[in-house]
Amino acid sequence: MCRFLTYTGAPLLLADLLYRPSNSLIMQSYQARERAEPLNGDGFGVGWYVHDVDPTPCVQRSVSPAWSNSNLQNLAAKTRATSLFAHVRAASPGMAVTEANVHPFAYDRFMWMHNGVVAGFHQIRRRLRDSLKDEFYNMIQGTTDSEHAFALFLNNLRVPFGEVNGEEMRYALVETIARLNDWTRAAGVTTDSFYNFAVTDGKITVVSRYASGEGIAGASLHYSRGRRFECLPSGLCDMHSVTEDAQAQAVIVASERLTDDPADWITVPDNHTITVFPDLRVSLDKIGLEA
Amino acid sequence: MCRFLTYTGAPLLLADLLYRPSNSLIMQSYQARERAEPLNGDGFGVGWYVHDVDPTPCVQRSVSPAWSNSNLQNLAAKTRATSLFAHVRAASPGMAVTEANVHPFAYDRFMWMHNGVVAGFHQIRRRLRDSLKDEFYNMIQGTTDSEHAFALFLNNLRVPFGEVNGEEMRYALVETIARLNDWTRAAGVTTDSFYNFAVTDGKITVVSRYASGEGIAGASLHYSRGRRFECLPSGLCDMHSVTEDAQAQAVIVASERLTDDPADWITVPDNHTITVFPDLRVSLDKIGLEA
Amino acid sequence: MCRFLTYTGAPLLLADLLYRPSNSLIMQSYQARERAEPLNGDGFGVGWYVHDVDPTPCVQRSVSPAWSNSNLQNLAAKTRATSLFAHVRAASPGMAVTEANVHPFAYDRFMWMHNGVVAGFHQIRRRLRDSLKDEFYNMIQGTTDSEHAFALFLNNLRVPFGEVNGEEMRYALVETIARLNDWTRAAGVTTDSFYNFAVTDGKITVVSRYASGEGIAGASLHYSRGRRFECLPSGLCDMHSVTEDAQAQAVIVASERLTDDPADWITVPDNHTITVFPDLRVSLDKIGLEA
Amino acid sequence: MCRFLTYTGAPLLLADLLYRPSNSLIMQSYQARERAEPLNGDGFGVGWYVHDVDPTPCVQRSVSPAWSNSNLQNLAAKTRATSLFAHVRAASPGMAVTEANVHPFAYDRFMWMHNGVVAGFHQIRRRLRDSLKDEFYNMIQGTTDSEHAFALFLNNLRVPFGEVNGEEMRYALVETIARLNDWTRAAGVTTDSFYNFAVTDGKITVVSRYASGEGIAGASLHYSRGRRFECLPSGLCDMHSVTEDAQAQAVIVASERLTDDPADWITVPDNHTITVFPDLRVSLDKIGLEA
Repeated sequence: MCRFLTYTGAPLLLADLLYRPSNSLIMQSYQARERAEPLNGDGFGVGWYVHDVDPTPCVQRSVSPAWSNSNLQNLAAKTRATSLFAHVRAASPGMAVTEANVHPFAYDRFMWMHNGVVAGFHQIRRRLRDSLKDEFYNMIQGTTDSEHAFALFLNNLRVPFGEVNGEEMRYALVETIARLNDWTRAAGVTTDSFYNFAVTDGKITVVSRYASGEGIAGASLHYSRGRRFECLPSGLCDMHSVTEDAQAQAVIVASERLTDDPADWITVPDNHTITVFPDLRVSLDKIGLEA
Repeated sequence: MCRFLTYTGAPLLLADLLYRPSNSLIMQSYQARERAEPLNGDGFGVGWYVHDVDPTPCVQRSVSPAWSNSNLQNLAAKTRATSLFAHVRAASPGMAVTEANVHPFAYDRFMWMHNGVVAGFHQIRRRLRDSLKDEFYNMIQGTTDSEHAFALFLNNLRVPFGEVNGEEMRYALVETIARLNDWTRAAGVTTDSFYNFAVTDGKITVVSRYASGEGIAGASLHYSRGRRFECLPSGLCDMHSVTEDAQAQAVIVASERLTDDPADWITVPDNHTITVFPDLRVSLDKIGLEA
Repeated sequence: MCRFLTYTGAPLLLADLLYRPSNSLIMQSYQARERAEPLNGDGFGVGWYVHDVDPTPCVQRSVSPAWSNSNLQNLAAKTRATSLFAHVRAASPGMAVTEANVHPFAYDRFMWMHNGVVAGFHQIRRRLRDSLKDEFYNMIQGTTDSEHAFALFLNNLRVPFGEVNGEEMRYALVETIARLNDWTRAAGVTTDSFYNFAVTDGKITVVSRYASGEGIAGASLHYSRGRRFECLPSGLCDMHSVTEDAQAQAVIVASERLTDDPADWITVPDNHTITVFPDLRVSLDKIGLEA
Repeated sequence: MCRFLTYTGAPLLLADLLYRPSNSLIMQSYQARERAEPLNGDGFGVGWYVHDVDPTPCVQRSVSPAWSNSNLQNLAAKTRATSLFAHVRAASPGMAVTEANVHPFAYDRFMWMHNGVVAGFHQIRRRLRDSLKDEFYNMIQGTTDSEHAFALFLNNLRVPFGEVNGEEMRYALVETIARLNDWTRAAGVTTDSFYNFAVTDGKITVVSRYASGEGIAGASLHYSRGRRFECLPSGLCDMHSVTEDAQAQAVIVASERLTDDPADWITVPDNHTITVFPDLRVSLDKIGLEA
């Protein structure tokens, strides 16, 4: 289990998401509120896009804990992003703490993060890999279930990378969940899997909240949408509401509410995806898997 | 605040202290029981002696969290020590997480660890350094209060390094506390300092439990003494009692009880030092400082 | 000895200085051309300014070799700077390879780098520290001669940080060299010191080329000034000349020529400083020290 | 390409192989003599056996360069081994510098190192993996050709791990080379592969010197055998000759001669394996592959 957040909107300092909110992602790296085990100290990663350079993300990852990393602190204080992925990792038992296993994973223009676990992953890993086109088979650098799920997602995309739209991305993500369900079931895995996946191509972001078990809640997931997310010099951060005159210019999707004002946050329903479009519309859609 | 332990006795696998007990030092690195903040994830260090090679310790330190370090895990599973220091760090606010700041600190044949904080350290640092002989002034590599206290300890030794005995080591340690008290008081520092210091020359170990404030308890400190400390294949670890036929061959001094059997552990009284002698006698002595 | 470069001018991708030139700083990290020992593998650092956020630099440093650091590679591919410092380190014997010892050093709005060595540093360190105001005494985090020289530079500034101009910065840098000369001479140090220092406040950059010994050449130092530094898709990088119609918009000062075209580069004369002004004028000035 | 060494014999301080010889492995990490590119700075690893604890090796690995690693320096100064593997890495282009890619690789009681490259590895990786039993398929943690070759070696062992002898180990190693040759040839790879592999189970060591190309020499490989390898306080290290009264108690196999005395070293012939037996006999055997 881990914690992550995504941001889409007007240029925002990374520090306003990672450091300044009362329940910032850095706070969640050692004092997460919405999971039983508060520690996410097995590395971190951030990635964002600089569209006027090229369409691939700028990813910075480290196995060191996020809370004490001075490079991250300096970078976050000076870098503005319009599309950000950020993740703090709690390695699942048996998963090595190495740089190759730190999220977000990136390939071509895509980034991918996971909060959860593929139950019985070692029983299906070979089958999963066997299903992959060479390109995605060879892309895998580490040993996590999360990165393998990313390869599966890419493998599920039906159209060339350049033409992906929200529908297509969502389809490939839901297909990823479906395949993982099929294979773990076939392997006789009976423990629950948790599939909060986040994927973006720098324009569209899709995030899922899903648990495989009947009646089991998915890991926590919330979003906040407004005309601006702001941290005041006083230290207070909040999302300014959309008004008649001011349209949405900021959408955050996060494992935990970053601020204490409950009015800022809406919980993503269990067994749903949330899609954030380039115009900052969001869409909540049920994950309809056949039994 | 941090957590530490020392071991003196018959050769013992490091893993039997660091990994196998129910409240091992590794457990304390992320789930410490006897301090409010359970996390000690800002690096770790271990040091032990190989007396038939030379009298200086073999120290291994890292800024990475102890719980995920595979080098430490491998080393602990294969290395036996007769005299061990081990430490997991929780950096005080403002103290950088760098290798030079990780305990134990070593110089010549001595090792030093600290669990606590010198309140208002920045106000007395220059004065402290000015009091040092060049040798110990130049020895300092990092920026911690703990390492500066070590330099002060070495500076307080009245006899050449080769001839130190328990009395002398205890004297220098108590003097260190006295000087820190003098200087912080003179600087008008009113918050409490915590001076659980551990020092060894590979033969004798002295550990203090001390808080500067009137009526304030020092950080937790316990010891266990018996004929052998053992971890069974079942996973249960405990200290075997001394009997008429079997003398003490193991002494542990630790911030927290490593095992769940309360009979294994005696709490070091506040404002005391504990000295462990080469024959494994221990002595508890009041820290008598003049007001 | 190390290798460094500074850039001032129109926004430029870091990769165009660090990775793409035939003798890029990354090449210099393992195959430096203008020093006997080609290896500068003891860490690296880069720092740049984001003036619309605040006047302090964004510094990223690591003890890992520059040539294999994927965070640096990703960042350089996506980040543009108008004022950049970059450094690859070859630790002097006895100087620890720790993060606190990696250049550039930063304080308030200043950055500092050093290519060279203060001969007999350990003999003058205490005297140097004793000369410092508390602010700069307490600023020092590591153990290098280079960082101590930075503290001395800051201590030599006669005016508040906000009002520094090129004259003042150059004065403080030359004073730094003068004091180091005084102290090493007084300590009886007879080996040569090398003082290629670079300092900036984000607007003005001053770099020195200086060796303390009579008739000894300072470490290599060159600069390139033109209307634009460009790396073509073909891989060829060069500095476009200033013309009647196009003023200088790029100045590089570097330990080594980054490109193979000798017309791009002018060698900074020994025993001189080069100052780069905000309007991209440069000034070469003799370092006039009294014997 | 990389550099490695193996030691078998009477207990020897690691420092006597890694640090003290004039061409020690640490020297080879930045100034290798017998390969065109002198730098092997992409991490290091050492592994040795503590047979009275258990039959698996104690491995310590790091992505940091060997020359500046203080943990390695401290450990080498205090640890004696009777069976040692040590490796300094020069990552092949495109191979990530991550801990999982550092040699020696270990599994059960085996260690494995490689100096060389599997040409066109990416073209045969999937085929190689497909040939593996699940146990060895799942063992792979990193992305190197070297670790995949190790998995192939383990897969080639015809008998349970506990009963391996020198013949069997040599067979599995030669089979590994044969399979790699088959697959790269089938994939149309025309560049040369270099297969200096070293493997041990803690008792027997087998090392190959092999290049796939007709008339191409394998990477350098030497061995030294005598009654004792010793480093004198003067700094001089050498191998004492076997005499009538004193049998061999030390065998080193190394990519480069560690000492300057040519009488100490015998070059392993191209296209051969060298096997070191528990009684310190060595056997040189031609690698007879069918075309």
